[in-house]
Parts: sequence; structure tokens; C-alpha cells
Amino acid sequence: MKLQKRADHRCFGGSQQVWSHESEATGCTMRFGLYLPPQAAGGRVPVLWWLSGLTCTEENFITKAGAQRVAAELGLALVTPDTSPRGITIAGDREAWDFGLGAGFYVDATRDPWAQHYRMRRYIVQELRALVQAEFPIDDARTAMSGHSMGGHGALTIALTAPEWVRSASAFAPIASPMRCPWGTKALTGYLGDDQASWAAYDTTALLQSRGWSGPPLLVDQGEADPFVDTQLRPDLLEQACAAAGVPLCLRRQAGYDHSYFFVSSFIEDHLRHHRAHL
Amino acid sequence: MKLQKRADHRCFGGSQQVWSHESEATGCTMRFGLYLPPQAAGGRVPVLWWLSGLTCTEENFITKAGAQRVAAELGLALVTPDTSPRGITIAGDREAWDFGLGAGFYVDATRDPWAQHYRMRRYIVQELRALVQAEFPIDDARTAMSGHSMGGHGALTIALTAPEWVRSASAFAPIASPMRCPWGTKALTGYLGDDQASWAAYDTTALLQSRGWSGPPLLVDQGEADPFVDTQLRPDLLEQACAAAGVPLCLRRQAGYDHSYFFVSSFIEDHLRHHRAHL
Repeated sequence: MKLQKRADHRCFGGSQQVWSHESEATGCTMRFGLYLPPQAAGGRVPVLWWLSGLTCTEENFITKAGAQRVAAELGLALVTPDTSPRGITIAGDREAWDFGLGAGFYVDATRDPWAQHYRMRRYIVQELRALVQAEFPIDDARTAMSGHSMGGHGALTIALTAPEWVRSASAFAPIASPMRCPWGTKALTGYLGDDQASWAAYDTTALLQSRGWSGPPLLVDQGEADPFVDTQLRPDLLEQACAAAGVPLCLRRQAGYDHSYFFVSSFIEDHLRHHRAHL
Repeated sequence: MKLQKRADHRCFGGSQQVWSHESEATGCTMRFGLYLPPQAAGGRVPVLWWLSGLTCTEENFITKAGAQRVAAELGLALVTPDTSPRGITIAGDREAWDFGLGAGFYVDATRDPWAQHYRMRRYIVQELRALVQAEFPIDDARTAMSGHSMGGHGALTIALTAPEWVRSASAFAPIASPMRCPWGTKALTGYLGDDQASWAAYDTTALLQSRGWSGPPLLVDQGEADPFVDTQLRPDLLEQACAAAGVPLCLRRQAGYDHSYFFVSSFIEDHLRHHRAHL
């Protein structure tokens, strides 16, 4: 694993760290952020995983969301993975901001040339999960997951496919149905190919139908001034799918808010408190 | 003035904006951040000016400090100027990160080739102050000032030289005496020349001696793991100067904290509450 500490900053009495390690799942060196609250000095603490959106690295949430304050109060660790493999070059991986680098979409690619490295689902659900549990004072049995945009899609799809691991899930402006929006169809075609049957494992609305969700209500915030809401994010599809599957959804449409971290930071406290209450 | 809005994000019920304008003081287009809390919709609100440190622009504090949450609660506007002229080129202005671009040191340069543009003191105290008062719902009579590192030096020196404007002042890891540290002597020599008599107007410890301070206690946070504390920042000199001048100082040495915005964000709430209580 060769875990290396890249940064360590005291923050709200805890410690905001960045680590790197050699990843088997992605075949490259990956970085992730880890916030350990003060309570971690006394034993294992529950954890919120945060999956970031297009173009992000592990840094965006760490520096912009202001989550450490509440995490320190609640005794919650924060794990923030990167959004794609890094340090490798694949033809076409940096031609667009919505595909390739910074745009792994939390899928396991099956199509060449992506299949060798773009295995972000496996990276998170198997490799990084095990690493974090083994190396840090984190209670894997009390795991929540959230994310933003592409990362909201990632958080919801991982929770729905691994409910034995993720006990509570939420999202900010998630891509509700990648099978039915331009960002998603581009990514799923590129990483998985044209067979849409293989896409359903990565589509929140399809997973709600096929698997349901018996955890606590899904908390979703969506800015009403978000420029992507009608074309890419489609909270209406999420609402329909939850209603059809009988899954409780707390969808809050926030007037005036856009797609930025100014939106995320405004409501992150509610998400942390929601998760902590269910962990 | 040609004030142009460059960004506007809803944040904690208020609005985080970025504006640009043609500056007479610096002879170039300048940007500044403005957070208007929800209370600004109902009339003029008190304001905290934040002066940033070396290498920063108006963006760092906006995205990293997490101050909007408390500002929204307290009804406090936040004004965040840039740290130097921009969009011009002067030989030597980008050879070092501690001089020139991003390193205006909040002085009015008198030495060529800097004197024409590097007039950040005048820019803030006269031009931007008047602009903000004229164009936004801000109560100039209730102004506080804070800043980080070079910006902590800026906040304290401006408060000490303009106490009729700045009613409360604080700082994070300020450069206490630029006349007596490498960053400061380099900048003051470059912008003002070798005559140290001209430097004293930009040295907090000298100003404490010559002018004193009759406002509320100066609140200063200093991380004990800050790598610059002993060579550049010298809180000991600030303590001595305040004691000699009979100026109340609340200097908090924070164990384990470094020089980053993780440190600033951990304590910014205390500063906002301190200032609000005195405005």
C-alpha cells in the first residue's frame, strides 16, 4: 500500500490530512483526504465519505465546504477520495472536463483503453474502504456517504449497491439518472460501451427500482439557480423513482442557490447532523 | 469607476459577490470580494474588511475561511480586496512570491518602478472605502478590519493610522514588525527605498509606540506550529509593543496550528463575534 502522508493541518482541534498510496484498483498513485476529529484520539469514530464532482480532486471539499467545524463537534471523520486515476496518460483523458481526468464517474470501466485504470467504484468500495479501516481509527460499521453532482451520483449509487456498508446517504445536486442526461450517457458510453444493460448498475433511478433502499431518508439539496438542474441533474427523476420505489426522500429545493461550493457550504451542516443521527 | 459584477453566489442566505473596477490609485483593474448578509436587504450593515496574505487574491478568504456562515448570523458584510495591482507588468514583479504581484504589503510605494501602481494603502483607505460606501448597503461608520500574515500587518497598520475609520482590529499570524523581518525589509526597501524613517508608517510595533490605540483589545491568533513565527511574524515583538504602549492585546497562541487557512477557518468565528460586539 505504501501509505504516505502528504499534508497534515490542525483544524478545529482535529487534523485535516492528505494521504497517497499505490492503488491496485486504478494502477496508479491515488490521493485522498482524511479529516480526523478530536474524538478520534480516544477510539474509532463514525465516518462520512464525500465524493466530489467533475474537475475536482480530493482538495475541493477539504478547502471549500467548511465541514470540519461540524465534524469536530459531532466526532465524525471525513474521507474524500479523488475523482479519477491520476499520473497516467490515456489518449483522450484530458480533452474534455466531463470525461477522463477528474471525471471517473465512480464506475468500473470495461471498455478499452479505460478498463485498466478507470475503476473508481472498485477503488472506493473495496480498496480504499479496506485501507481506511485498517490504518485509521475509523468505525467502518458506521459509514455514511454524500457527494456533489457527479459525486452525488456516486454516493447514491454506491449506497444503493452496498447498503450493508453505507448506512445513510445524501447528496448535493446529484446527477439523478446518468442514463438519461448528456454528461452521463457520454461517460457511460465511454467507460462501459453501448450496451445500456450494463449502465443500470450506475444509475440511481434504476437502482431505486431494482434494489430499493431501507435506510434512513435520502437527504438531497438542489439549488434552484443551478444551471444544470434541468439538463443534467434532473431531481424530478429522482423524486419519481423514490416515489415509485417507496423510498423516503427529503428533497430540498433551495431558492437562489447555484452549483458551487458556496451552495454546498451553506447546507453541509444539515447533512452531517442528519448522518450523525443515523450512525 | 465602471463597477462590474464578476460573480454572485447565494451563500448562507446572503450573497457572495466579486466585483471589478478601474482603480485610480493603482492604475489598473482591481477586483474585490463582497459578502452581503441577508440583513443587507433591510438597510446598511456593519462591515469587516479582510486583508489577505502573500500570494493571495480576493478569492482565498472567500472560498477557504468559512466566514460567511457567521457573517450571515451576525449581519456583517465582508470586503476582501486583492493583495496587489493586477494586469500590469513591471520588471521584477513576478520573480518572487514575497514581492511584487500578490505581495503589495499594503503600502504606497514611493520608489520607481513601483510608485505608479503599488499604492495599496491609498487604494484601500481612500478609493475602495469610498466606493464600497457609495455603492453598497454598508455602514462605513461601523468598520472592523482583520487579515492574515501580510494582511494581518495590513489590517493592524491601517487600523492604527485610521482609527477614526477602523473601530476594531484583529489579525491571524500577522507580520508584527516588517522593519525587523526578512519579508518586511525586502518589501519596504523595494517599495520605499533605504530610508527607514519612511518605513515606520507601515510597522505595527512602531505605530503602537507613536500613535497608540484606544479601540477595543486587539485580538490576535498565532499558530504555534506556524513555520514563520520566529523569523517573520514575531508575536513577541507585538506583545512587547502593546505592553509598552498600554494597548490591550488578546494574543492567543494556538497549539498545533500552522499558517494555513485551516488555522484561519478554525478561529474566524471568534474574530467576527469580537468585532460585531464592538460595532
